[in-house]
Amino acid sequence: MNPGDQVCISQNGTEYEGILLPSANSDYLLLKLPGGYNIGISAKGASIIVVKPSSENSFTQESKPDQISNISFDDELPLISLISTGGTIASTVDYRTGAVASKFDVADVIRSIPDLSGMANYRGRVAANILSENMEPSIWQDLAKVIFEEIESGADGIIVMHGTDTMQYTASAISFMIRSPIPIIFTGSQRSSDRPSSDNLVNVICSVEAAKSNCAEVLICMHSNESDDHCSLHRATRSRKNHTSKRSAFETIGNLPLGEVDYKTRLVTYRRQYTKRGELQPSLQSDLDLNVELIKYTPGMDVKLFDICSGKSGIIIEGTGLGHIHTDFIPCLSSLIENGTCIVMTSQCIRGRVCSRVYDTGRDLLNIGIIEGEDLLPGTAKVKLMWVLANTNNPSKAMQKSIVGEITNPSRPWI
Amino acid sequence: MNPGDQVCISQNGTEYEGILLPSANSDYLLLKLPGGYNIGISAKGASIIVVKPSSENSFTQESKPDQISNISFDDELPLISLISTGGTIASTVDYRTGAVASKFDVADVIRSIPDLSGMANYRGRVAANILSENMEPSIWQDLAKVIFEEIESGADGIIVMHGTDTMQYTASAISFMIRSPIPIIFTGSQRSSDRPSSDNLVNVICSVEAAKSNCAEVLICMHSNESDDHCSLHRATRSRKNHTSKRSAFETIGNLPLGEVDYKTRLVTYRRQYTKRGELQPSLQSDLDLNVELIKYTPGMDVKLFDICSGKSGIIIEGTGLGHIHTDFIPCLSSLIENGTCIVMTSQCIRGRVCSRVYDTGRDLLNIGIIEGEDLLPGTAKVKLMWVLANTNNPSKAMQKSIVGEITNPSRPWI
Repeated sequence: MNPGDQVCISQNGTEYEGILLPSANSDYLLLKLPGGYNIGISAKGASIIVVKPSSENSFTQESKPDQISNISFDDELPLISLISTGGTIASTVDYRTGAVASKFDVADVIRSIPDLSGMANYRGRVAANILSENMEPSIWQDLAKVIFEEIESGADGIIVMHGTDTMQYTASAISFMIRSPIPIIFTGSQRSSDRPSSDNLVNVICSVEAAKSNCAEVLICMHSNESDDHCSLHRATRSRKNHTSKRSAFETIGNLPLGEVDYKTRLVTYRRQYTKRGELQPSLQSDLDLNVELIKYTPGMDVKLFDICSGKSGIIIEGTGLGHIHTDFIPCLSSLIENGTCIVMTSQCIRGRVCSRVYDTGRDLLNIGIIEGEDLLPGTAKVKLMWVLANTNNPSKAMQKSIVGEITNPSRPWI
Repeated sequence: MNPGDQVCISQNGTEYEGILLPSANSDYLLLKLPGGYNIGISAKGASIIVVKPSSENSFTQESKPDQISNISFDDELPLISLISTGGTIASTVDYRTGAVASKFDVADVIRSIPDLSGMANYRGRVAANILSENMEPSIWQDLAKVIFEEIESGADGIIVMHGTDTMQYTASAISFMIRSPIPIIFTGSQRSSDRPSSDNLVNVICSVEAAKSNCAEVLICMHSNESDDHCSLHRATRSRKNHTSKRSAFETIGNLPLGEVDYKTRLVTYRRQYTKRGELQPSLQSDLDLNVELIKYTPGMDVKLFDICSGKSGIIIEGTGLGHIHTDFIPCLSSLIENGTCIVMTSQCIRGRVCSRVYDTGRDLLNIGIIEGEDLLPGTAKVKLMWVLANTNNPSKAMQKSIVGEITNPSRPWI
């Protein structure tokens, strides 16, 4: 009996058939069920029959990078492009060696999540193969080109498989770069597919439903909560990874998620208005000004961190409260602005709008020409400023106007 | 009829007596009730009688800085020290000129919040008079000395009035600097006392109850939610200002608040274990290593931001996810560590624990000597590292061990 074997386990009168997975805890047997779901079964008193040894299974086929794979095309079903960039979700575990393989083939994905078949036709692309902490603006541009090619060649929906660490940055970049007539769904996995608690299966299935839906926006599709039964759809530019390890790490900031996918019923629901399928003509503007920094202000900070930003095109400040920074820093910021650096103020509070008009420091910041970043999330603000500096003529105006839903309307005037 | 006048307003058969406040909206009259609460009354159909003109009121008495004021001492009541550092809550509005005065006198506070009298005896101190974005580590040290003097001279509880922008940093610094046998309560105000929606009154009253309670820890006492009826007590090192403008801006990260104060019943309740009144002997260790930076990593960041940290005693990194950073930065960080800089990894996710052992990048970071910051909030981690470098011999060990509740116990091993 080896990992990778197809087995039948009897335990307390119940029978489970599936692929045996490697288990770190010898008290439990890990089993991948035919639908792709992993379960743990107490080893105590369990009887196991090997139905088919792993050598006869086909988990470790060779595949070529950047290949386009089509399998069993059904004219009745929509075409979904699965684009891999790397990260936990894109890794395929070789159950015979335990190693995480970096290859990506749609056939592999469907083999490990059989429930995918019958939902759509799939086409696979590899845009990158990196851990998401190594994601860079130049790869955002490569990815944008791949996504745009897929839109142009007739895909009905896009799913981008991405590491969760920097997903919100990449998905925000794609939001600004592409006007899309079809859904672009980012999804990932907080736990790899060889763990019983993996979120891989539910996230991918729900992403396919979102990619088939009517919302032609860039969304992040990840677990909604501790239970394993639905995913939230977050507008990319308003989303944030708010937990290091939970499967429901992603949240929409300042609002409920835009939508939800029920894993069992496969129902997709949206709470608010969105851009509809076919509403926009496809276009691609992937230019970026890479010379933009984000700097978080904390008490006791060395002004040198701003001094070395001399010559930068833009800076996002994560200020305190309503958008403040120590008044001693104002002359340095003023000189940066005079020399052409575009400085935008956001808040480390994460929630709520900056408002520089309430206190003296804020008014001083406005006077030297700092741009108020409304309720832009600081990370989104950085991505947006890179895009705005390369694609618009009036960065100050563009930063304060919502382009793809990244700024929410003020709820009510302050009282 | 002028702002500052004591008036009686009749509206729809109800009478309201209080001090008339300046109103930005001429449709509404703003009235400060005898308890200190502000209300708005529709001006339409209201009749107003001036009971006592403002010239006879005493809102703008002179006061000396750093004075110690005692008023009507009652031997039966505990002694609470009110320490002002500036910020919205400490400002007294001169209703005849509309200007925000920066002076601070306990008599002024009690005059504007009459409900305070009878709850405790008060002693007032001024430790600083700044907007909290200008708060600096050297002022944390001044404040620690003032608080310690108050503890030594017999106060039963301390209330520090502080601007909300950087309250979590100052309160964390005091948490590490002082072992206290009495409660140290930080409070502030998100809306100034001349607004009908001011949180000033409820926050101060609830802070007095917390300062009289049995919990000898450094806590932040601010509005719990949108309603105006109770305050939460947040352990300082686990708290964060999570909204720019809401009165309930402060949250305890990763848990419910440690306690609650019901404004109406004045009941103080605690949910979890805490350090009890009298449990610790007072001590003061206010040394800090000021040569510490916090740097937030975002995709596309310039490595120069780390290069100029050469010679720093310590750096807190706000990494991505479980505590990652682009692998291209590892050689630079390695060279900083070799030259004696202590580098601690935290996560921009805010919630959850860093764990470097899961992915390659994390293991590489551990190999070069990066310290895992557990679930320390990045801001708290910076303050702690400043304190740890000046007061302990083994910074790495000290950073990974909870000193005052700043690190929570791992809930359960990952599955």
